[in-house]
Amino acid sequence: MSRTLTQTEARDLIAANKLGHLGCIAESRPYVVPINYIFEDGQIYSHSLPGLKIEAMRTEPHVCLQVERIEDNFNWRSVVAYGAFEEIRVPSERNDVLGKLLAQFPLLTPVESLMAEDGNAPNSVVFRIVVDRITGVAEECWRE
Amino acid sequence: MSRTLTQTEARDLIAANKLGHLGCIAESRPYVVPINYIFEDGQIYSHSLPGLKIEAMRTEPHVCLQVERIEDNFNWRSVVAYGAFEEIRVPSERNDVLGKLLAQFPLLTPVESLMAEDGNAPNSVVFRIVVDRITGVAEECWRE
Repeated sequence: MSRTLTQTEARDLIAANKLGHLGCIAESRPYVVPINYIFEDGQIYSHSLPGLKIEAMRTEPHVCLQVERIEDNFNWRSVVAYGAFEEIRVPSERNDVLGKLLAQFPLLTPVESLMAEDGNAPNSVVFRIVVDRITGVAEECWRE
Repeated sequence: MSRTLTQTEARDLIAANKLGHLGCIAESRPYVVPINYIFEDGQIYSHSLPGLKIEAMRTEPHVCLQVERIEDNFNWRSVVAYGAFEEIRVPSERNDVLGKLLAQFPLLTPVESLMAEDGNAPNSVVFRIVVDRITGVAEECWRE
């Protein structure tokens, strides 16, 4: 009763959402953390203050982002985008991406918002996930 | 502005939720999938039809379950329970756990519900995550 999503359906779900679950390897073990992201030109962009997930992705850049739309137990879609973590360090590109992230997520975290008010976010690590594979599954049922 | 949750706060969040995100290693890469679960005696119990996540956990039993409560970007909690996948094969124990899961999640998936109506769920893999470590973080702010 479940079916595989088409690549278009899977990409549409990633594009429609802003919150996903990042899967990575931290200290040799699977680690999952919710992140806000934007999806542009087939890549996933996000940023984070330094911490466990940044250290994890620097050590093991193979990561995934899972994105879902759950209506109920009978109607849901879940997509996993697999890719490689890549830090964006070139200042012009970093500012461009950070600007788009701040436009989408004006709140961010309080710490980051304060930094943004100062005109920059000096400690934030801006990164992309270079997506190489997307898989998705749907459960779709009619209930009386 | 974020803080570490106490073990009690972290466990309370896991106990209060029913939906979490399982992180595991599938085909050598991080994989994330939403699952329903119950939390009992400090362990996480769930079940699934055979598929990618079951194969993944049989191959690499170190997994995590991430559970969250997100009110907004300024107020959220996220917990990660690390542990080891363990299949429950003893029929009496399996039936006991499956009964508790069916009581909590009467719908499950349609396939499983049909099986459940037949008095059993022959293909379902019933498992626990033997939890060895729980970490949690909270962001808590007041907004005007």
